[in-house]
Amino acid sequence: MVSPEQSHYQNLSMAKHGGRSKTTYFFSDTFLYAGGALVAFLLVWALLSFFSLSPNPTPTPSFSSTSFTERKSAGVESLDASPAQGCPDGASSFDMVHDPQDQNFYDDQKLSYSIEAPPVKNWDEKRREWLKQHPSFAAGVENRILMVTGSQAKPCKNPIGDYLLLKFFKNKVDYCRRHGIEIFYNNVLFQPKMFSFWAKTPTVKATMLAHPEAEWIWWIDSDAAFTDMDFKLPLDRYKAHNLVIHGWPKLIYEKKSWTSINAGVFLIRNCQWAMDFMDVWASMGPQAPGYDKWGEILSTTFEDKIFQESDDQSGLVYLLLKEKEKWGDKIYVESEFYFEGYWMEIVGRLDNITERYKEIEKRVGTLRRRHAEKVSESYIPVWEEYLKDAGFGRDGWRRPFITHFTGCQPCSGDHNKMYSGQTCFDAMQKALAFADNQVLRNYGFMHQDLLDPSTVNLVPFDYPA
Amino acid sequence: MVSPEQSHYQNLSMAKHGGRSKTTYFFSDTFLYAGGALVAFLLVWALLSFFSLSPNPTPTPSFSSTSFTERKSAGVESLDASPAQGCPDGASSFDMVHDPQDQNFYDDQKLSYSIEAPPVKNWDEKRREWLKQHPSFAAGVENRILMVTGSQAKPCKNPIGDYLLLKFFKNKVDYCRRHGIEIFYNNVLFQPKMFSFWAKTPTVKATMLAHPEAEWIWWIDSDAAFTDMDFKLPLDRYKAHNLVIHGWPKLIYEKKSWTSINAGVFLIRNCQWAMDFMDVWASMGPQAPGYDKWGEILSTTFEDKIFQESDDQSGLVYLLLKEKEKWGDKIYVESEFYFEGYWMEIVGRLDNITERYKEIEKRVGTLRRRHAEKVSESYIPVWEEYLKDAGFGRDGWRRPFITHFTGCQPCSGDHNKMYSGQTCFDAMQKALAFADNQVLRNYGFMHQDLLDPSTVNLVPFDYPA
Repeated sequence: MVSPEQSHYQNLSMAKHGGRSKTTYFFSDTFLYAGGALVAFLLVWALLSFFSLSPNPTPTPSFSSTSFTERKSAGVESLDASPAQGCPDGASSFDMVHDPQDQNFYDDQKLSYSIEAPPVKNWDEKRREWLKQHPSFAAGVENRILMVTGSQAKPCKNPIGDYLLLKFFKNKVDYCRRHGIEIFYNNVLFQPKMFSFWAKTPTVKATMLAHPEAEWIWWIDSDAAFTDMDFKLPLDRYKAHNLVIHGWPKLIYEKKSWTSINAGVFLIRNCQWAMDFMDVWASMGPQAPGYDKWGEILSTTFEDKIFQESDDQSGLVYLLLKEKEKWGDKIYVESEFYFEGYWMEIVGRLDNITERYKEIEKRVGTLRRRHAEKVSESYIPVWEEYLKDAGFGRDGWRRPFITHFTGCQPCSGDHNKMYSGQTCFDAMQKALAFADNQVLRNYGFMHQDLLDPSTVNLVPFDYPA
Repeated sequence: MVSPEQSHYQNLSMAKHGGRSKTTYFFSDTFLYAGGALVAFLLVWALLSFFSLSPNPTPTPSFSSTSFTERKSAGVESLDASPAQGCPDGASSFDMVHDPQDQNFYDDQKLSYSIEAPPVKNWDEKRREWLKQHPSFAAGVENRILMVTGSQAKPCKNPIGDYLLLKFFKNKVDYCRRHGIEIFYNNVLFQPKMFSFWAKTPTVKATMLAHPEAEWIWWIDSDAAFTDMDFKLPLDRYKAHNLVIHGWPKLIYEKKSWTSINAGVFLIRNCQWAMDFMDVWASMGPQAPGYDKWGEILSTTFEDKIFQESDDQSGLVYLLLKEKEKWGDKIYVESEFYFEGYWMEIVGRLDNITERYKEIEKRVGTLRRRHAEKVSESYIPVWEEYLKDAGFGRDGWRRPFITHFTGCQPCSGDHNKMYSGQTCFDAMQKALAFADNQVLRNYGFMHQDLLDPSTVNLVPFDYPA
């Protein structure tokens, strides 16, 4: 094919040589046309490569994604239930079979997976470089979450401890499957001295390095369960932050309470800031030289702290209080929904919540429609229409997002003496069955009695009409 | 912009009118060029839309997918480790937020999730219709697997039963995460009378209906673990079959042994044949009128059957033996690798296997390279070069794919009297740690002692060089 330059020269030369025959006109015109076509072709190709776009027409949306109804309270960002657009291209997303030989951060001898090693440097650039080398993981990376949880390496002291942990794990796996989230369960201490709640940062650091394709690591304690299987994290709210925890700003800054936040559930961005933060946070731990000193500092700072030893939750509040610019400003204290919810203010309300949702389903045919588990998210906007006045907190009747059994200690059985072991056990069974019902619905079954995990019934067609 | 036709007419008209000025030449040439460009642009756009291609240049493959080295034994299909091509487009694969209002099988009142209802009719067409309505799930559907496993609803009788089940579950989740497979853990009997091993078909049927996007359902018993975290099912081998089990044809057809196959691990296609098959298979179960009769038939047919009652494994062999055309011909009896492996012939060899693999790693720098968990599959072809003579069976030293602790009964603790409870426990701990080491490697750690699940060490850079 003639290049644009060539055809241009051809024209110039012809112009020089005066008149042209009809054939000459035709051929030179054709060359110009073809040349233009070629250039355009290359341009489109290059542009599409650059922007990684696949120009497929979007299928006609029926239950299309819409924002949540604006919340009543002023100044509150509306929560967006689902991504702004459908995803028309169904080709498998990840290219798991190519790892180019080009060097990247993994080839650096100085890289350490250990929390005791200094934080990795230039982690943001290193992740970016890895993503460039593995472009199939780059698309959609900003919303990609990896859930991390775990428990101890040995059997639980509580005879039914592992039974409960198994059910809590299943609950998390169910949530992840419904939403396309990956999950890693860790059951060994990466730093042997960082026992119990301290085990989180060693696990999270190693996970961040093992998963450069994940933007967010979502740590969830082994005794926390999803009780709203539909709800999705409003990631847009956290765009400018690197760590999300549940808590009450007043209790942090005014009351200075060690329970002003909960460190059992957190969302942390896979970035340099997080690596640096975890290094500081971990330095308050039992393996660190400053452990005893931190025990004193934290006990002094937080009057309501019940035990002397340094703990990671007090440590986190301390960093929020004392180092606002470096850490506090990047930590989002979420209090508008149960990003983490205290079971005692939740479990007693589950029956009422069940009734309320059932009432809605009785009225709305669309919500009774059977469907594949994988398209459950399509029904979120339909639910939202009817849940807009439900209320997210203790005075409302929305399904609580996450119910956390703080104080119940299912593994050791050393529950807070405020309540009995039976109370805790029944509450956990109930919450887990409440959640399981939302999952099993897509498999055609449900528990009639939330306290009886052994029995399910077939759900009739068009239930509960 | 001038259309191609317009510029063509312009040229004709100019030709008619004789001579042209330089400016006229320039403008008409430009129009031609631009016109050609526009047409080419539209053509490329249309073509790309039609073929759903994103014209990203494929990154230079280094560890590109290749078939396994041909196996020595004649007539054996070579096992293909990875898909034939990389997947350049990283856009999220599934559109989970659209469920068109068009009617499909879910809207049929006669659809039942229960194993006791007659099998669904025209299931293949119904799945196809659903996929048409949900095109993002159609691409890649032929290799899409959903793993299913589970255990009882109540705590295990064995005090460490749930502890072991939790670890077996983690093991499966690890395998699934490495290979992009979904997993559903069921812990309630969908048909209350179909207890124990009978619980599989009720679970699998409901799962098939809940997951029309899954081509294969892969049932794995709660006491089976993945001990080769890299190996992938050679799905191409099963193209013409609908059910895959591990077994020995000689033991089925000649010896007529009830242990000629193992029903604890099976791969079943989400299709009409499977629905019909499961209906027949389940009709031998405790909830069915023919249960006692089947007990007699199976005990008579299989001389080595140890207990009188009908069981699903004997039932399956029976169907293979007696109904070859209807069932047998579509059931692939896999005996060339540990699609399911008996732990007693495996666990004693794990230390040797560990050494052999370590020897290879010492020699091959590429295999020592740290990498993201998500691209572990890239290294399969590199390993294959060195494993081609390793051998898949009991006389070889390949990592066994799946190790099944038949006879150990971790949940009830009622193990076969051939071995002690301690023997079983140690064997399970060892196999699980052997597998965990393959996973933890990407997180920077490993167990030194396979019998000590509590301890891991940091893996040095370039280990084990």
